[in-house]
Amino acid sequence: MENQHAFSEAERAAVYRAIFNRRDVRGQFLPDPVADDQLARILMAAHHAPSVGFMQPWNFLLVRSSTVKQRVHDIFAQANAEAATMFPDEKREIYSQLKLQGILDAPVNLCITCDRSRSGPVVIGRTHIPTMDLYSSVCAVQNLWLAARAEGLGVGWVSIFHEKALQDALGIPHHIVPIAYLCIGHVSHFKDQPELEKAGWLPRLPVADLLWHEQWGAADSGENEALTAKLRELQQAVQERGIYPA
Amino acid sequence: MENQHAFSEAERAAVYRAIFNRRDVRGQFLPDPVADDQLARILMAAHHAPSVGFMQPWNFLLVRSSTVKQRVHDIFAQANAEAATMFPDEKREIYSQLKLQGILDAPVNLCITCDRSRSGPVVIGRTHIPTMDLYSSVCAVQNLWLAARAEGLGVGWVSIFHEKALQDALGIPHHIVPIAYLCIGHVSHFKDQPELEKAGWLPRLPVADLLWHEQWGAADSGENEALTAKLRELQQAVQERGIYPA
Repeated sequence: MENQHAFSEAERAAVYRAIFNRRDVRGQFLPDPVADDQLARILMAAHHAPSVGFMQPWNFLLVRSSTVKQRVHDIFAQANAEAATMFPDEKREIYSQLKLQGILDAPVNLCITCDRSRSGPVVIGRTHIPTMDLYSSVCAVQNLWLAARAEGLGVGWVSIFHEKALQDALGIPHHIVPIAYLCIGHVSHFKDQPELEKAGWLPRLPVADLLWHEQWGAADSGENEALTAKLRELQQAVQERGIYPA
Repeated sequence: MENQHAFSEAERAAVYRAIFNRRDVRGQFLPDPVADDQLARILMAAHHAPSVGFMQPWNFLLVRSSTVKQRVHDIFAQANAEAATMFPDEKREIYSQLKLQGILDAPVNLCITCDRSRSGPVVIGRTHIPTMDLYSSVCAVQNLWLAARAEGLGVGWVSIFHEKALQDALGIPHHIVPIAYLCIGHVSHFKDQPELEKAGWLPRLPVADLLWHEQWGAADSGENEALTAKLRELQQAVQERGIYPA
């Protein structure tokens, strides 16, 4: 059956290339500046994320000043030292050796926020699940991340901060939620696997094992054999070749 | 400056086409079945979202049974009737006329969840911002949504539910968070604008007005003139042509 709305095979491959080859970049940033037209395109991608009730609750706070970056790095370092103490002994040493941010290395830092009061107190689609506006800003992050991958730009999401300390470092009012603090820049290379997978911290889970049918906990009872087989086949291809499509 | 990691122009255009032409589909679903290989690819796309500490907190609960869909539709209808009463008079009538879901029309429904206990109590990157695991599952939603657009499949996110009612309808334990209930299927067409924008509910905000520099509230003081101009130019192109790239 021909689907006139489907992208061409080459276009689909490009979308999947962005999705499967996207990485959380911490250590491979280059000092080369990010061009304005690239930055404009990835910000536009973020701005065209889905948002609950079309409220577009995001703002984009660009940081390029080394003074501001240093301030953010300081509060990261403090929170990260606290974090290290939370892990059991056998994991603490590995944790301390992981590079978890590129705040000072990346030429551009970007905080994407959520203004929960953006379009008044009653928002279509947020009447019963109040976190929907936060989720909209997360969709903006993911749009930007994939667009950046297509532009050849690395993005790393740093989340080891006390929220209030991050707000204060950037002058963000306390009613505005900082959703993501992103480090953005050109990179020497993209790793072929997520760093935590490569480091043996956790394995990639088999996607077919995460799938339920009709009810929670109901695995494939045979009716969905073809789908389950296809999922296992795709996952094996990605694991063997590192990236997808090869 | 040549960037060896950047996609080709055609590949970049494909990624932006998915991002800018993605729609929240409610009313255009066709009954045609979704092929297993397409479903497998979009689930794999979701499974390759970024996740905090590589915890991959998601499950995918597929619903195709009309009995289960009807149950979900019933709890939507109840919540939606409550929601309508929350809007001021002048908006209530418009609200009641909006079609906000395609639960029964779409051949496939999918609930993407977040298991907050997935990899133990201490998770890298979730030590200070506890909502990071919820955000990971949202990234999975957005990956799936963009992959589906490339496949020519429509996706609609339904969020007008009491969380507990949705959990009970799908047998989801109460410690598992249902992040998104999605309706998925082939469509007659994709609208050229978000429905709420077209209906005049809210306008698309000018992206340049959402951008701060170095500190919250600090607009472009001239140093970022080129970026600001580029953003306005891109947004005008998208608004005039409906989609981007044309």
